[in-house]
Amino acid sequence: MNKKTVAVVGASGYSGEELVGILLRHPDVELAAITSRQYAGKLLSEVFPRFANYPIAKKLKFIDSQPDQLAKLADVVFLALPHGVAASYAAPLLNSGAKVIDLSADFRLRSPEVYKEFYGTDHPAPELLKKAVYGLPEIYRDQIINASLIASPGCYPTSILIPLIPIVKKGLIDSDNIIVDSLSGVSGAGRKLETDYLFCECNESLRAYGFPKHRHLSEIEEQISFSAGSKVVIQFTPHLVPVNRGILTTIYLKPSDNNKNLNDLSSKMESVYKEYYSNSPFVRILKSLPDTKNITGTNVIEFSWKCDPRTGRVIIVSAVDNLVKGAGGQAVQSMNVLCGFNETDGLTLA
Amino acid sequence: MNKKTVAVVGASGYSGEELVGILLRHPDVELAAITSRQYAGKLLSEVFPRFANYPIAKKLKFIDSQPDQLAKLADVVFLALPHGVAASYAAPLLNSGAKVIDLSADFRLRSPEVYKEFYGTDHPAPELLKKAVYGLPEIYRDQIINASLIASPGCYPTSILIPLIPIVKKGLIDSDNIIVDSLSGVSGAGRKLETDYLFCECNESLRAYGFPKHRHLSEIEEQISFSAGSKVVIQFTPHLVPVNRGILTTIYLKPSDNNKNLNDLSSKMESVYKEYYSNSPFVRILKSLPDTKNITGTNVIEFSWKCDPRTGRVIIVSAVDNLVKGAGGQAVQSMNVLCGFNETDGLTLA
Amino acid sequence: MNKKTVAVVGASGYSGEELVGILLRHPDVELAAITSRQYAGKLLSEVFPRFANYPIAKKLKFIDSQPDQLAKLADVVFLALPHGVAASYAAPLLNSGAKVIDLSADFRLRSPEVYKEFYGTDHPAPELLKKAVYGLPEIYRDQIINASLIASPGCYPTSILIPLIPIVKKGLIDSDNIIVDSLSGVSGAGRKLETDYLFCECNESLRAYGFPKHRHLSEIEEQISFSAGSKVVIQFTPHLVPVNRGILTTIYLKPSDNNKNLNDLSSKMESVYKEYYSNSPFVRILKSLPDTKNITGTNVIEFSWKCDPRTGRVIIVSAVDNLVKGAGGQAVQSMNVLCGFNETDGLTLA
Amino acid sequence: MNKKTVAVVGASGYSGEELVGILLRHPDVELAAITSRQYAGKLLSEVFPRFANYPIAKKLKFIDSQPDQLAKLADVVFLALPHGVAASYAAPLLNSGAKVIDLSADFRLRSPEVYKEFYGTDHPAPELLKKAVYGLPEIYRDQIINASLIASPGCYPTSILIPLIPIVKKGLIDSDNIIVDSLSGVSGAGRKLETDYLFCECNESLRAYGFPKHRHLSEIEEQISFSAGSKVVIQFTPHLVPVNRGILTTIYLKPSDNNKNLNDLSSKMESVYKEYYSNSPFVRILKSLPDTKNITGTNVIEFSWKCDPRTGRVIIVSAVDNLVKGAGGQAVQSMNVLCGFNETDGLTLA
Repeated sequence: MNKKTVAVVGASGYSGEELVGILLRHPDVELAAITSRQYAGKLLSEVFPRFANYPIAKKLKFIDSQPDQLAKLADVVFLALPHGVAASYAAPLLNSGAKVIDLSADFRLRSPEVYKEFYGTDHPAPELLKKAVYGLPEIYRDQIINASLIASPGCYPTSILIPLIPIVKKGLIDSDNIIVDSLSGVSGAGRKLETDYLFCECNESLRAYGFPKHRHLSEIEEQISFSAGSKVVIQFTPHLVPVNRGILTTIYLKPSDNNKNLNDLSSKMESVYKEYYSNSPFVRILKSLPDTKNITGTNVIEFSWKCDPRTGRVIIVSAVDNLVKGAGGQAVQSMNVLCGFNETDGLTLA
Repeated sequence: MNKKTVAVVGASGYSGEELVGILLRHPDVELAAITSRQYAGKLLSEVFPRFANYPIAKKLKFIDSQPDQLAKLADVVFLALPHGVAASYAAPLLNSGAKVIDLSADFRLRSPEVYKEFYGTDHPAPELLKKAVYGLPEIYRDQIINASLIASPGCYPTSILIPLIPIVKKGLIDSDNIIVDSLSGVSGAGRKLETDYLFCECNESLRAYGFPKHRHLSEIEEQISFSAGSKVVIQFTPHLVPVNRGILTTIYLKPSDNNKNLNDLSSKMESVYKEYYSNSPFVRILKSLPDTKNITGTNVIEFSWKCDPRTGRVIIVSAVDNLVKGAGGQAVQSMNVLCGFNETDGLTLA
Repeated sequence: MNKKTVAVVGASGYSGEELVGILLRHPDVELAAITSRQYAGKLLSEVFPRFANYPIAKKLKFIDSQPDQLAKLADVVFLALPHGVAASYAAPLLNSGAKVIDLSADFRLRSPEVYKEFYGTDHPAPELLKKAVYGLPEIYRDQIINASLIASPGCYPTSILIPLIPIVKKGLIDSDNIIVDSLSGVSGAGRKLETDYLFCECNESLRAYGFPKHRHLSEIEEQISFSAGSKVVIQFTPHLVPVNRGILTTIYLKPSDNNKNLNDLSSKMESVYKEYYSNSPFVRILKSLPDTKNITGTNVIEFSWKCDPRTGRVIIVSAVDNLVKGAGGQAVQSMNVLCGFNETDGLTLA
Repeated sequence: MNKKTVAVVGASGYSGEELVGILLRHPDVELAAITSRQYAGKLLSEVFPRFANYPIAKKLKFIDSQPDQLAKLADVVFLALPHGVAASYAAPLLNSGAKVIDLSADFRLRSPEVYKEFYGTDHPAPELLKKAVYGLPEIYRDQIINASLIASPGCYPTSILIPLIPIVKKGLIDSDNIIVDSLSGVSGAGRKLETDYLFCECNESLRAYGFPKHRHLSEIEEQISFSAGSKVVIQFTPHLVPVNRGILTTIYLKPSDNNKNLNDLSSKMESVYKEYYSNSPFVRILKSLPDTKNITGTNVIEFSWKCDPRTGRVIIVSAVDNLVKGAGGQAVQSMNVLCGFNETDGLTLA
């Protein structure tokens, strides 16, 4: 198979850097361009010494390029830009015939109204929202194959939607009673120069933040609403904890009316998951409890659940690496599906 | 005022060590005895070099002493022993006239049946359960003054009960709908030689554990039931995260029927807390969100809350140091109340 | 004894914050003023919620004050400012009769030439260099008593000079062959908004930096030269490691010509240290090896040494908390000496 | 090319686990057997859930096998056993025709006398010492090709020998004056149940240990002596610091008599390294200073140096991942050379 050429726009943040690393190791693609306003003119090996042992890192320079030029250089263009900025790249790239995989929040929602509610401004390219496919391959594999614009999900949503969507679709749980409590490593905040993210402010620190209306809630609710067939509102509380990478999500659920027998419910969940994810190589359904250290650096999501007969609730716990399955790895997984590569190419299972 | 003499039984774990440190700095007491089977015969300064600059640490040796001997040495005896073991020390010490402050779980419950349900064995000294006072000075200050046996609360319960009890007592929230999600630093597990607590197993790791029926749930539910005036069942999920110290607790609540207006509820909560804790020097009610780094090493508990009009819930977040307010510091605070010292003596506010 | 009034100029960095905390707990002083351009007008409790349980923190506001005003408010003024800035406060404060304890590098050197060599600019107040006393109480206690301007040492120098000065003075080691290798926690860099100090850049990272001519080398060499009675040049390599606090220093030494018998040398070192530090409550001479976790949060320096018969060298290892014994604590220790308080007042031994 | 079959003996420690992970990803080999007394009979996926998404992990069980059986199962057998134990496996495996790559210390030395001096017992198989090749491919690539028994180097030695050997061979430095100061992550201690390695004992802790005669010193000195052509004695001080992975080594050197001009020396070093390592894909010679975070998870060693005209010394700093280039990765690199695979197969460059 011929290698595809790929470009990464905004390759200087943590997600962009992770994505570049995955693409350098990927057997089916050639990294044709990387852009960064800040680093334009510098070699990849200068900006990120960790890549210096790849021969291409001593040749490839960051450019500050326009969308139309990029479309000439690359079959697939990844956008690792702040939300709002990504949208302005997408239209010209698509017009020039490139496939676009956007890691920002710009095309994750179908509703421009919800976008405005959560992001505070009008959507910059509402006509593209219909075109975009939500890039969660475990759920939208068939649509991704034919997509030209893929909106790669946020890190929190990935950890939440993969365990929730199959059981919401099957009506196993009460979708009016979903509480999600998540812990995130500090790289989730990006390479941002704010006091809050200095080492001494994060190390030996535990804190909740950004609740009750974190921006990721918009895509979580929209996706769960699609699965439920009706509008769903969710309680979501993110916390910042001192690890570099990893999200651990704990989800509190009530069974739906027909599923109050918790033993039966648990069996049904197992069947539903096994069937739904039978062809998903990165999903790991555990008997034991997840631990982020078992998935960091990989594109795997692991999860398990416990029923509590004292309260009548089911508690699901899931774990992903926010920079891999929650960002760069998932974007490459979508590319693999889109380009007809093996879904696991270039991605690690452990 | 004459100094009181104090002893620490089981001074080799993290809680015992912290307690010894606090007592060494305490202006009103003299550390008269420390016991440890493992270290009997060794100087305090040998076992814990960090205490070596206190002159007494080069004189005081660990002993492996019997309760009756200890009662001769000390006015107040702290038990920092595993649950089940502490109970066997309490009766003889009390009979000999010592005051006992137990940091284990042995006397925290009023109900021997609940003890058996959660701890798996019959209670070793059920007749003492009636005598014991739950050592949360913010709630039981008046009873502690006259107590001879104080059961110092667990670390998780401390972080949960102080924000919950006043509003449960006032009927502000629906006590059938309490979900508690807690994060704990690794010292909460004690100085235990298990693979799970090795540095490389905890660092860069996030995991839930011990749910849905963690042992601390028994005392949490018993105390909240007392406040509610009826049996309360609670959802509680603890997580282990890579900090040495600190508990961060997030509590999800529904208002009671008369308090569905969230703005009013929030005002009422503020009034209730301010009144209830007006004389509690270690309680810090915040406008901003708690951060464990602001309370580690201190005996402070800080908390705040947010209302979510989209879900109709109130979310409280609290923070304590599991070894200080959650163990050694709280035990000393009880001693201060019991002995008529200033409640803050020997304890740090920041 | 009447309480002294104290002020902290530049109280918003890590050292300033630590100093404020120590002064709040100090039994002999009253915190009369704190300054910060950035926070002027804000309450101490707003800027640092951790101090909010001290009643004074809800009354005391940061001011942006002039030296002459400060001299009216405080008997002793601490300067926790960047080097170069501190000097401009010192002269007017001294003229107004205040005692000044400067935590910056401005008055640590006796030689303005060396200042220029290491700091790149002319010294801003060279006439004060003669007046200033190097604020290492273990070495300069007698001079501190009568000083009006105290230059509190840097964190690295503290960890190096206390073990070195007594044996250099006695001629036990070859002062032409000193290699110092130090590890520092990240708070040593201050609360600086630079990418290098973000959590994800420091966690799981080990690196050397700033060698071979780190600025602290100037005061290390000047002090060791004074002790040796001749110009000494030292090899010094600092490293940044992922802890909040703590410096661990490893010093490689060759014996002087008369001390090649390592057993004898070791005995002499023990005698010299015991005598030299017999009245120094914060010095801990260990048989075992230092560990920063045994000194963080305290004003203690601990050290020990080993002789290597295979190489003929002596290796000393020492540990201090860079924010306490290496900054705020040491400055308060100097104040205690200066004001005739107990040397340990307000400072922790463990 | 046909795949080779491989076995890992002692696959339950950190090095063994890392090795298994690398072999699972390796394109040229098939993992045919894994042994562990403790886990015999359990599936790989049960013991290490992180490997569960590799289909083979749900089929391959740990066995407690004898050397002769292993030789039937695998072309290449890796020994990840404690020193002393590995030796007893080597002879029967070699006799049965397997190639053996030993990650323990058993065959790293040529001298049984030095083994006894540093390890305290007679060497268990001295006749094999002559046969064994020291598995540092950058230095012994030609001998590894024809070896049947490879002794994979220790983690500290790897970080020290790669930067030192070329310049010692060329006589650029004074080999009587080598001081090595190393920092190691906690996984270097193995998955050992000792209090010293508990999370709370390591986190926020910095300490030196095991000096002046750490066991790794024996192989460091032997190899440097070979390069120098005469007996070399080295000063070596390891430190334990709170990272999971990574070694940072700082080496203090004096130039040899003919190389006192430091600018010339630095140029010569650059030429020597470039030539010596021109075909070594994992060696990264930096202009900037190494940082372990740029090499963890990879098989890369990075290093750079600075000259200090004030002291006349050269200081080299190097970084490796102790579990990859310092253990499992290096062993696989040797296997690649031995089996005629690409040297980088299965190993990551970033």
